[in-house]
Amino acid sequence: MERIYIQEVAPRDGLQIEDQFLPTDAKVDLVNKLSKTGIDKIEVTSFVSPKAVPNLRDAEEVMKSIDRQRDVTYTTLIPNFRGAERALACASDEVNLVASVSETHNRKNVRQSVKASFENFQDIASFLSGTGMAINGTLATTFGCPFEGSINEDRVVVLVDRYLELGVKGITLADTTGMATPKQVYRICQKVRSRWPDIPITLHFHNTRGMGLANVIEGIRAGVDRYDASLGGLGGCPFAPGATGNICTEDLVHMLQFMDYDTNVNLDELIGVSKYLESLLNHEVPGQVMKAGKITDLYPVS
Amino acid sequence: MERIYIQEVAPRDGLQIEDQFLPTDAKVDLVNKLSKTGIDKIEVTSFVSPKAVPNLRDAEEVMKSIDRQRDVTYTTLIPNFRGAERALACASDEVNLVASVSETHNRKNVRQSVKASFENFQDIASFLSGTGMAINGTLATTFGCPFEGSINEDRVVVLVDRYLELGVKGITLADTTGMATPKQVYRICQKVRSRWPDIPITLHFHNTRGMGLANVIEGIRAGVDRYDASLGGLGGCPFAPGATGNICTEDLVHMLQFMDYDTNVNLDELIGVSKYLESLLNHEVPGQVMKAGKITDLYPVS
Repeated sequence: MERIYIQEVAPRDGLQIEDQFLPTDAKVDLVNKLSKTGIDKIEVTSFVSPKAVPNLRDAEEVMKSIDRQRDVTYTTLIPNFRGAERALACASDEVNLVASVSETHNRKNVRQSVKASFENFQDIASFLSGTGMAINGTLATTFGCPFEGSINEDRVVVLVDRYLELGVKGITLADTTGMATPKQVYRICQKVRSRWPDIPITLHFHNTRGMGLANVIEGIRAGVDRYDASLGGLGGCPFAPGATGNICTEDLVHMLQFMDYDTNVNLDELIGVSKYLESLLNHEVPGQVMKAGKITDLYPVS
Repeated sequence: MERIYIQEVAPRDGLQIEDQFLPTDAKVDLVNKLSKTGIDKIEVTSFVSPKAVPNLRDAEEVMKSIDRQRDVTYTTLIPNFRGAERALACASDEVNLVASVSETHNRKNVRQSVKASFENFQDIASFLSGTGMAINGTLATTFGCPFEGSINEDRVVVLVDRYLELGVKGITLADTTGMATPKQVYRICQKVRSRWPDIPITLHFHNTRGMGLANVIEGIRAGVDRYDASLGGLGGCPFAPGATGNICTEDLVHMLQFMDYDTNVNLDELIGVSKYLESLLNHEVPGQVMKAGKITDLYPVS
C-alpha cells in the first residue's frame, strides 16, 4: 500500500480565523487528541504577533503544555526572526516559513516584498543552523492569487529554488484561497517533482470552490504524498465570507483509506476528534463524513 | 476542446427531498431559466405517485408549462407503466427508468425485485416503441448500497446489458448515496466503456462524503463525458440528515471550464440561476462557487 502522509493544520490555519478565542486548555486538549490518531504532523500554532492574530496569542503556552508523541512532528508557523526565537524557545520540531508567489499577496500578507521575505528567511536559517530545528518553506498563492489572478509557474520554480538554497527540509505548495484546478495541480507538481524528485513536497489545498479532494487525486497522480488538511474542514477564506476552508482531514483520510492508501490514521478516532472540535466551537463545520458516516456504515433494512 | 455534457437534476432529484412544496410557477420559471444556460439536458420532474412524492405532484402542469429550447433534452423520471403513459401525454423528450444494482435497495425503493423491475421495463419499452420517445436506463447504487455495502461489479455489467436489450439510448451509472471513490469510478467506468464504447454513459454522483468532483475527474479519465448535477448542490441523502446532495452544477461547470473543457454552459448565468433557486427556497444550499465566486473574480488590492 502506498503511504500518504497527513498533516493537520486546524489548530493554526483553522483556529486563527474563528470568531472566538478557543481557550488554551481546549487547544492543548485538541492537539493531544490529534496526536493519538496516527497523523504525521500537526501545525500547532503560529508565533505571530498577538495583535495580528489574537486567537493564537497563547502560542507559547500551548506549545509547552501539549503531550508530544514520538512519531508526530510538531510544527509552528513563523512570520519573522522573532517568531524563530520563540519557536526555538518552545522546542518546536520544525518551523514553517511562508512567502507568496504573488508579489501583491506577499505585501498584503506580511507587508514586504518577496525579496525582503527571503532576505529575512536567510537570517532565520542562519540563526537556526545547528539547532537541529527543521525548516519547511511554504509558497502561498502557488496556484493563483486573489489579487493578481494567474501565477507565472516559472516563478514557482524559482522560489522553490530559493527555499532550497536556504537549506529547507521540505516545500509546501499552498493554494491559499482555493484557486487550484486539477489539471493545473498535476502540471505544476510534475514540474517541481521532475526537477527535485527527492525533496518532500506538501500540497496545501483549500476547498473554497469544491475542488479540494479532486486536486488531491491529481497531486497523488503527480507523485506528491504529503497533504495538509484541517479537522472538520475548519478555516475559511478572508475574502469570501461563507466559503469553506481547508480540505477536511477526515474527509481526506476517508477517501484515501477507501482507495487503499495507507495514511496510518485511525479514521474512527479522527472523526471522534472532529466531533469534539465541533462541540468546542459551538458551530457547524463543513466536514461531510462526520455528518454522513463512512461508506461502510450501513443502514438497517427495515 | 473536449466536450462534456451537463445534465441538470435539481428540479427532480433536488426538489423531491425539500421540506416544502415549491409552487408550480416557480418550478416552471426555474426550468425556463435553466434552459437558457446552455445545459444539455434537464430532468424536469418525476411521474411518480403524488402520495409517494408530494413535492412533484404537479408533474403534468410543469411539463406542459415550460418553454422548451430546441437544444435541450427534457427528460422525466418514471417509476412504472403509468408513469410512461403520463410522460408520453406530456411529450417528454425522454424517460428515465431506474433499477438498483442492489436487490435490497430496489425493494426499498420500488417495492419489487430487480427482476420484476426489468419485466415492467419491457412492457414500458414495448409501449413506447415507435413513439419516438427515448429511454434512458439508470442503475442506482452502482458504486455501493447503503444497506448491502459493496456491489458486485459483474452485476453492473449484467444489468447494463439488460437495459441495452430493452433498446435504451443511454445508461446512467448512479452513485445514489455518495459511496463512490475515485479509483472505483475509474475501474467500473473502464469496464463498462470497454464493453460498450459507443453507448452514451452518464455518471450521477452525490457529494455526500465530499468526493463528488474527484469522482468526476476519474470518470472523465475513463472516457465518460456526461454528468448529472444539481443546481446549488440541492438534494440530500434520506439516510443522513445534514449530508449534502448531488454534486453542484455550477461548481462542476466552474471546475471543467477552468480545466479547458467545453461544457457549452454560460457559467455566470448558471450562478445567477443558482442564486435565484436559493432565494426561492429560503435556505442555504451547499454550492461553493456561488459563495466564493469564480477563480477569476479578483479582489481589489486596497
